[in-house]
Amino acid sequence: MLSKNAVKRIKQLQLKKYRKKTQRFLVEGAKNINELLHSTVKIEKLYLTSSFFNTINTSDIQDVSSVLEIVKENELESISFYQTNNAGLAIAEIPENQVDIKNDTWTLLLDDIRDPGNLGTIIRIADWYGIKNVVCSQESADFYNPKVISATMGSFTRVNVVYSNIADVLNNNPNIPSYGALLGGENIHSLADLPKAGFLIIGNESHGISSQVESLCKNKISIPGFGMTESLNAAVATGILCDNIFRLKKK
Amino acid sequence: MLSKNAVKRIKQLQLKKYRKKTQRFLVEGAKNINELLHSTVKIEKLYLTSSFFNTINTSDIQDVSSVLEIVKENELESISFYQTNNAGLAIAEIPENQVDIKNDTWTLLLDDIRDPGNLGTIIRIADWYGIKNVVCSQESADFYNPKVISATMGSFTRVNVVYSNIADVLNNNPNIPSYGALLGGENIHSLADLPKAGFLIIGNESHGISSQVESLCKNKISIPGFGMTESLNAAVATGILCDNIFRLKKK
Repeated sequence: MLSKNAVKRIKQLQLKKYRKKTQRFLVEGAKNINELLHSTVKIEKLYLTSSFFNTINTSDIQDVSSVLEIVKENELESISFYQTNNAGLAIAEIPENQVDIKNDTWTLLLDDIRDPGNLGTIIRIADWYGIKNVVCSQESADFYNPKVISATMGSFTRVNVVYSNIADVLNNNPNIPSYGALLGGENIHSLADLPKAGFLIIGNESHGISSQVESLCKNKISIPGFGMTESLNAAVATGILCDNIFRLKKK
Repeated sequence: MLSKNAVKRIKQLQLKKYRKKTQRFLVEGAKNINELLHSTVKIEKLYLTSSFFNTINTSDIQDVSSVLEIVKENELESISFYQTNNAGLAIAEIPENQVDIKNDTWTLLLDDIRDPGNLGTIIRIADWYGIKNVVCSQESADFYNPKVISATMGSFTRVNVVYSNIADVLNNNPNIPSYGALLGGENIHSLADLPKAGFLIIGNESHGISSQVESLCKNKISIPGFGMTESLNAAVATGILCDNIFRLKKK
């Protein structure tokens, strides 16, 4: 049975200020809990329903015997951010991520992605294309927001996400070519190839890339459109650009 | 000032059964209202804040003088599905959409997309790539759900969306080549070209394409991945596949 203190602590961790203060975050749902168990992210506490516990593939998972508590489904629902969670919830330690810009691979720079669902979906895209490092501007959505973690579908365990000043990252790495997603940029279908390393810069959902970052961006690229709408969803645009980059980049 | 009856009617239209019964739906927010005003979708009632009313570009818009009511921001917020709507809300008539399969262009077949945000984002993608017709399986999310309309960012006015049995559509159009998004399908980057017309079939977020539809699908295609995650978000996958189709299709 969940204690009042446990319930209070979990509810607090839905808020950014408590996540920051305690350096803990919440992981919910079958897919994300499974990925967490197979990762090196430290688990402080794990609440699982017995039905979900019996489905876990226990090979190669963390030893969670000392932090595991079996709860009833209605108890889990009372603490979940999501209405339909019947699997589990974990309190995990925020890892010490560091900027690790490499000149032999692509890095994603997110200039003010505000929607948590978009951020989580973009991290899932990065994982699909093997992009290890994502740098978010300080105003971007919080990586440890439960909506972000949920939308990553487990990719939060494999992608290194840090917050930094995007202009500083560009200024500090002048040898890495930068490609900004901008309306009126060069049609990405017309490019013959792309370098094996670079920065892909994605702007805010409403306002695009900020003028400061745009002025530092060496190459402007765009996705050709054939219809009447003015723009694509930011996560969809990121997916399409990553797909073209991995099709065109030199091996 | 909004009448009690008006408030009640708007709240009812957040539910599918009232939308179906009355053949009306809600349109909210600046972008969607602007697109609605420039479309041929009939407007029964239009509630706008005076600040938004003053920003409207009135050239080529519908005559809405007889259905317009100026409301205060707090009145608008009390009837909005979204917390942050400070522009307007419309009650619009559901148009009589019909399946209009053409053999000179691509059609999107959605086999059970359940998430309203994904459906709206996919309709926005269809609009970007000039795809006029989208057929949803009967179990898919409701096109006129406020979350779907919102995520289309105005594309709901330009894309023809109907509900039908996907297997019937395939059986009734044997001359149109079908391409299903399936794990283990042919790598879409390895294709030399694609026909100028076809069906792109996208499956459910969790279970993919149903076995019945898969058995009728002539070509299986997939998006190459380079990382560790098993799948992409359904809307992102749709965007990437459409981008490849419009890059590869014969003119």
